[in-house]
Amino acid sequence: MTGTDSGLLSPVWAGTDPAALVSDESWLAAMLQAEVALARAQAEFGMVPLATADVVEAAARSGRVDLVTVAERARGAANPVVALVESLTAAVAAKEPTAADFVHRGGTSQDIMDSAAMLLAARVCAVLERDLSRTGVALAGLVSKHRATPMAGRTLTQHAVPITFGLKAAIWSQLVMDALTRVRRVAAELPAQLGGAAGTLASYEEYARIEGQEPCGVELSRAFARHLGLAEPLVPWHVARTPVADLGAVLAFVTGALGKFALDVQTLSRTEIGEVAEPPQEGRGVSSAMPQKCNPVLATLIVSAARQVPPYALVLTQSMLAEDERAAGGWQAEWHPFRECLRLAAGATHTAAELAEGLQVYPQRMRANLELTGGNIVSERLTAVLTAKLGKLPAKKLLTRLARKSSAAGTPLAEVLLTEPELAGVFNAETANQLCDPQTYLGASIDLADRVLKRASTLGVQGFGQAV
Amino acid sequence: MTGTDSGLLSPVWAGTDPAALVSDESWLAAMLQAEVALARAQAEFGMVPLATADVVEAAARSGRVDLVTVAERARGAANPVVALVESLTAAVAAKEPTAADFVHRGGTSQDIMDSAAMLLAARVCAVLERDLSRTGVALAGLVSKHRATPMAGRTLTQHAVPITFGLKAAIWSQLVMDALTRVRRVAAELPAQLGGAAGTLASYEEYARIEGQEPCGVELSRAFARHLGLAEPLVPWHVARTPVADLGAVLAFVTGALGKFALDVQTLSRTEIGEVAEPPQEGRGVSSAMPQKCNPVLATLIVSAARQVPPYALVLTQSMLAEDERAAGGWQAEWHPFRECLRLAAGATHTAAELAEGLQVYPQRMRANLELTGGNIVSERLTAVLTAKLGKLPAKKLLTRLARKSSAAGTPLAEVLLTEPELAGVFNAETANQLCDPQTYLGASIDLADRVLKRASTLGVQGFGQAV
Amino acid sequence: MTGTDSGLLSPVWAGTDPAALVSDESWLAAMLQAEVALARAQAEFGMVPLATADVVEAAARSGRVDLVTVAERARGAANPVVALVESLTAAVAAKEPTAADFVHRGGTSQDIMDSAAMLLAARVCAVLERDLSRTGVALAGLVSKHRATPMAGRTLTQHAVPITFGLKAAIWSQLVMDALTRVRRVAAELPAQLGGAAGTLASYEEYARIEGQEPCGVELSRAFARHLGLAEPLVPWHVARTPVADLGAVLAFVTGALGKFALDVQTLSRTEIGEVAEPPQEGRGVSSAMPQKCNPVLATLIVSAARQVPPYALVLTQSMLAEDERAAGGWQAEWHPFRECLRLAAGATHTAAELAEGLQVYPQRMRANLELTGGNIVSERLTAVLTAKLGKLPAKKLLTRLARKSSAAGTPLAEVLLTEPELAGVFNAETANQLCDPQTYLGASIDLADRVLKRASTLGVQGFGQAV
Amino acid sequence: MTGTDSGLLSPVWAGTDPAALVSDESWLAAMLQAEVALARAQAEFGMVPLATADVVEAAARSGRVDLVTVAERARGAANPVVALVESLTAAVAAKEPTAADFVHRGGTSQDIMDSAAMLLAARVCAVLERDLSRTGVALAGLVSKHRATPMAGRTLTQHAVPITFGLKAAIWSQLVMDALTRVRRVAAELPAQLGGAAGTLASYEEYARIEGQEPCGVELSRAFARHLGLAEPLVPWHVARTPVADLGAVLAFVTGALGKFALDVQTLSRTEIGEVAEPPQEGRGVSSAMPQKCNPVLATLIVSAARQVPPYALVLTQSMLAEDERAAGGWQAEWHPFRECLRLAAGATHTAAELAEGLQVYPQRMRANLELTGGNIVSERLTAVLTAKLGKLPAKKLLTRLARKSSAAGTPLAEVLLTEPELAGVFNAETANQLCDPQTYLGASIDLADRVLKRASTLGVQGFGQAV
Repeated sequence: MTGTDSGLLSPVWAGTDPAALVSDESWLAAMLQAEVALARAQAEFGMVPLATADVVEAAARSGRVDLVTVAERARGAANPVVALVESLTAAVAAKEPTAADFVHRGGTSQDIMDSAAMLLAARVCAVLERDLSRTGVALAGLVSKHRATPMAGRTLTQHAVPITFGLKAAIWSQLVMDALTRVRRVAAELPAQLGGAAGTLASYEEYARIEGQEPCGVELSRAFARHLGLAEPLVPWHVARTPVADLGAVLAFVTGALGKFALDVQTLSRTEIGEVAEPPQEGRGVSSAMPQKCNPVLATLIVSAARQVPPYALVLTQSMLAEDERAAGGWQAEWHPFRECLRLAAGATHTAAELAEGLQVYPQRMRANLELTGGNIVSERLTAVLTAKLGKLPAKKLLTRLARKSSAAGTPLAEVLLTEPELAGVFNAETANQLCDPQTYLGASIDLADRVLKRASTLGVQGFGQAV
Repeated sequence: MTGTDSGLLSPVWAGTDPAALVSDESWLAAMLQAEVALARAQAEFGMVPLATADVVEAAARSGRVDLVTVAERARGAANPVVALVESLTAAVAAKEPTAADFVHRGGTSQDIMDSAAMLLAARVCAVLERDLSRTGVALAGLVSKHRATPMAGRTLTQHAVPITFGLKAAIWSQLVMDALTRVRRVAAELPAQLGGAAGTLASYEEYARIEGQEPCGVELSRAFARHLGLAEPLVPWHVARTPVADLGAVLAFVTGALGKFALDVQTLSRTEIGEVAEPPQEGRGVSSAMPQKCNPVLATLIVSAARQVPPYALVLTQSMLAEDERAAGGWQAEWHPFRECLRLAAGATHTAAELAEGLQVYPQRMRANLELTGGNIVSERLTAVLTAKLGKLPAKKLLTRLARKSSAAGTPLAEVLLTEPELAGVFNAETANQLCDPQTYLGASIDLADRVLKRASTLGVQGFGQAV
Repeated sequence: MTGTDSGLLSPVWAGTDPAALVSDESWLAAMLQAEVALARAQAEFGMVPLATADVVEAAARSGRVDLVTVAERARGAANPVVALVESLTAAVAAKEPTAADFVHRGGTSQDIMDSAAMLLAARVCAVLERDLSRTGVALAGLVSKHRATPMAGRTLTQHAVPITFGLKAAIWSQLVMDALTRVRRVAAELPAQLGGAAGTLASYEEYARIEGQEPCGVELSRAFARHLGLAEPLVPWHVARTPVADLGAVLAFVTGALGKFALDVQTLSRTEIGEVAEPPQEGRGVSSAMPQKCNPVLATLIVSAARQVPPYALVLTQSMLAEDERAAGGWQAEWHPFRECLRLAAGATHTAAELAEGLQVYPQRMRANLELTGGNIVSERLTAVLTAKLGKLPAKKLLTRLARKSSAAGTPLAEVLLTEPELAGVFNAETANQLCDPQTYLGASIDLADRVLKRASTLGVQGFGQAV
Repeated sequence: MTGTDSGLLSPVWAGTDPAALVSDESWLAAMLQAEVALARAQAEFGMVPLATADVVEAAARSGRVDLVTVAERARGAANPVVALVESLTAAVAAKEPTAADFVHRGGTSQDIMDSAAMLLAARVCAVLERDLSRTGVALAGLVSKHRATPMAGRTLTQHAVPITFGLKAAIWSQLVMDALTRVRRVAAELPAQLGGAAGTLASYEEYARIEGQEPCGVELSRAFARHLGLAEPLVPWHVARTPVADLGAVLAFVTGALGKFALDVQTLSRTEIGEVAEPPQEGRGVSSAMPQKCNPVLATLIVSAARQVPPYALVLTQSMLAEDERAAGGWQAEWHPFRECLRLAAGATHTAAELAEGLQVYPQRMRANLELTGGNIVSERLTAVLTAKLGKLPAKKLLTRLARKSSAAGTPLAEVLLTEPELAGVFNAETANQLCDPQTYLGASIDLADRVLKRASTLGVQGFGQAV
């Protein structure tokens, strides 16, 4: 019995459009596409009649290669290509018996499987570029709109010093742009795979020789890549897994970048904090039991991906340890985590775009939280001011004491400063209040936000927000 | 578009009978089974009319809850249970409108999802026990039959000292038995999950109260577990992920244990070594291009699983870091790797049983390889003998020189010993030959093999081999 | 130049007493202890003169085996034992030249290294048992004292339904007890390692033979284990890495269990939540810049360990894939992560005990936060009540609307209920207020806490708290 | 008690020169260097007197900041910087009391720690570039010398088709060059870190204001980076961990690339294969017991690193999930694995250079192994030839039968072909022998090797070998 790949266990991609890009059906189609490209490339070099290549393509598109049959017969060779070739050969023979001998001519399983994997990766990368750009644009809009919106900066979970929400969004934006540049870089280098049994291209050259042609292994590899729209490999990479390891690293980076954003959204939407909320949508964020709930589900979905992809990508990194000319176990271990990295990253990016575009921001709650500690959030600044007057250690010691006093009594720090005997005459009310006002201690928040916006504009992901 | 979960990328389980145990369809069915068990348990406490529980069961079995619909609507709640409950409620209402209100009464998504996961784990554990036992029996047969079959022991890839094949198989057997005991232990403890929204059982108790019953949260949990055939939890474990972490560790252990066996089969079947071969079967181990090939595909499939499961299990270990009363991301990240660990372990075990039962063993090749170094494989023993005569350092130094001489010239070590001036008169030909005979330097190999057989008999996995 | 292992990068264990248990110096000492145990065990079987074993012990304790020399010469054999044996032999020879030949008689590097590793693991396990017990006792005290202290239960970061702080502490406690039982189990099984070059014990038996004794490999292994206070192995486990894999899994469990506790402490001590605080101590939790800060540093240290140990333990699981009779790379990769797992787990447990024993709990803040949503935290209960009156879907729909109304307007839910036209006459003020009072909706929190306390008492980790 | 960081458990780097680059002492020195750079940069902007910056530098170099004290006091703040600043301040005060207040002015712990980490990474990257280049040059020499040296290509552990050793070395070379380009890229982008408490640069700007200067946060950051020789960050990256994640990915790539090389060396030096050997050196590769042994220890050391680094790098990828403005646990978890990745990669590269430069190659053994199957290694070619005559399926079926016959009987394939009734008249002896000669079926091996040599020359890592 074969099940349905419905994504029941992966709501981060279930039902989204990128998911289908890497389904078993898509893999099968990509493998068939690689077989067709091989025939077409060989036709260029006189190794396969042109008409035969047409038949191969027609058979590949005929739907006669059955997915489940191929999958279940994959055990025999520890990969699905042998069974695929048998099915495709039968489909070709049904159309034109003399064409059957030209299917998968000189090919090795890994040439087909790796090329198919790169084809799918290229498609997912295109979707990632699109959705990371959407996310980037939306975040840039938040940066722009909230560059001067003050809020509490938090470190080690505690209020630290004020920041602006624009700066926070700029950090998210910076990571999304880093992800985007990495996806673009890796997408531009995805190579086809053509090497024959042990990476020497000997079988392809032998078939050329038999057809009375010159040896043309390297040229065939170039033509094959061109037919697939992939980069030409310098040499076969059956056991030099750079493309796979690079993709793994980039996809883990993508979900890591989005995971930071999602984690912050979760924190900021805590009941006690309430500074942002997810975009409202009928039926979203609901609980099966608690009607009052509005769970940050988009962020949760993104985090669920960000927790999975790095360990899956680890399998890809570890597959670099591939023995001999083709590996017995390491290569076969790549396929599943490779697919999961692609679809989790795509699902997470799709979800992040939705989250960024509709994020609800509550500047008043930010303001209220900023005031929560009665000015203690700027005690760092007071230390600086008093260091000049009292020396560093006495200043810090005094401020520590006064901060605790303010905190314990619930008295604003400014008031504590004004009534502290040790500081008699140091401050007047105006200075004390001004120094203790969090909104006047934003440092370079706005400049930094603007630096990120400038980068965004360079990358074509500028936003459409505007200053409050 | 939703694809087919054919296992195209995972030939280690594609087409094997354990695979279907954890398909999306099986998950859906297990979740429905949990809903039914909840209704049945509540009926025991007067919270749900008995007839209503019957209706819930009939609806759950009606096939009206559509997998793809549930999966695609899971995004709304970041888990599939909310959508499942809606579908199930509709199916119940279609049968008996008044029953609909009793579906998922007081339930929380995680109660259903976690209980379903444990149900599936229990089924897979049963299969693992069966197939580990089969593997254990087959390996015990090899131990028994080959307890005295000499072969080269290899360390850091080099011939070291002789062993017997029975001892090697005993090491495999030992690991398989360790795996079996761990599976049995974890299988006996798989708990149901019942806690309500935040693990207090409050909703269940409230519904009891409304129906005029006593609060009975803990008793309901016990009954629920009984209906599912699972262990009763001491407390809800929504964020105390012991069962999940334990399963992850055990499943990684299982594939690690089998991976050691598979890795050795791969090495021993190398063209240059040729001491074992996989069980022959029409169409297995074939290459798409090379007719002479007989690839160790079963071992390769097992290794492909053994390289994937530990990183997937890592996600489960890391899910222990679950914040608050229910986690936002960590829990959702568990589902997919949990399923993969189960089916990869089951597929690997199924495959290992097949490999162990049919493994071809070639004692003559073992003998030939053992002789390959002309006795140098016992130079350790000569060191011992000469240490008594010359002292340790001189003995080792001398043997190092003689071993290299023997190796470089291709002269048997015995001959080199007899012609070495420094050793004039120390050995006669008989002694030298006897000392240099690898078959007389097996140490406790046989005793050790027997100790493992004894354990196997205790665990009920004794084999049916017999001494050569 | 060789540096100092000060723990500069690992404050979770730097300066704590368990850290020194696994320093390079301790490893060296444990390896020497294994060499002494080998000589002593061999003396029992007439393979080494008793007086010689004394000399070996004296030399091992003489301090003449230099750590840095051994470490730097380890490259030659890819393990430190060969260099250790050379140094030890020289030290023995300096005391008694005739004794030198008896050092490491028949031994193989892995026998020494693995046995040393188990010795250190046993010591760390003892510390873990002690500190997990301390943590367990302290948590049981919190459970007991706060079994009825109400607070907000939070799921997916949002207020869900009320719980008690005692129940939350019970979940922490449950995990700590699970960790404790796993540590106890693994500690009881730590085996010595004795196998000789390829696990046959041949060299040991050969030396026995030379000394005119019977072959006694298995008996020697038993005696060796007894001298080290370790379990006797059934067979050598050079490439059957069960003890190492098991330890890895248990240590990852330990930090995972403590990590859950620490994560919750971090959340609960957020500035906006403030329900707990870390035990105050002069100079702890300070910021280099912000005097008002009181960072949850103990929790942060624990989390830093919990994020590291699972990936390190993964290396240990993956080392199960050990080829041949001794592995070339996998075994050598174990040592460092093995040590880190041990000391991070020990440091985290030491830190958790401190955190649990001094945790500051603020029931008033819990109460205040519980009231934050004006009763919406019990809207689940109202759904239950109204389901009986209106049916499930209308009830949930109505409550969703009312919860949002209450939340948007800041009006208590009880008041919203009383003024809602659809509910005219359904509630009187008393009922509404009573139903909306979070403190009356604790479910089985207290029962569940008591179940955990009962388990704690069984395990000997009952606490000393008392009900408020 | 504090131990010695001797590398006892990590022989891959113990005693090598890169190891000291990241010792605790080096970290301390780098942190002090960051403090000095801060003072110097602030002096440029009038925030610190120039003479004071001189005093800070003198104090930092005075050796008065004690490593162990700093490490053990790091628990108080969950990072070592607070204690470092106290010690440095005391050292400064001892020289010039008025200077003490200017130490770490406005600084936050993470600014110092992250900048120190990048300094050390830069140094290790320089060593990696050097040693990867050395490795690359040595491998290019092997490619060049052996571009036409035939050997058996192996896939799934079995002889597949012939390759040349030059092509195999070209694959190693390709990976090493991929590693080199990635190290160069990441090394060029390593940024300093300057952000102040929450990444706003507010404290630095406040001190400027107090000293009567303009706000200059961004400019200060640029000057600080310049003083450290690091790249200027666009914005503070306290919780945008791109540099750390990128380094992790690159270092895992480096050890993966070298691991492939090492794994192949291990296989090729198996006793039964014997095609390469590690560079001989007195005392290297020795066993503590077996004098005949010559273990591939360099390869083993490299593999031991390649198995550790990817899981450690995983911690770094996962640290991208950093909450708020500074993370509580994730950041602290980075330090140790960051250091291990650096030193394991450096040790592995150092070792790989040694291995590549001295690798012993045995073309005669390659030839002998190539002949081992009596021509069956080119049965793929015969399939191609016979496909043209018999059709694909009959050809493959026939060859499968003949290959097994040849293999079982030990008869050369050419002879089997000539005596096969089905092939009567198809081949004459000359054709059969020529077609079955492995040395004439090398495909594009030489072209491919040359393509890699061309790349090597572009990267400046051309070798000095020459054709045999």
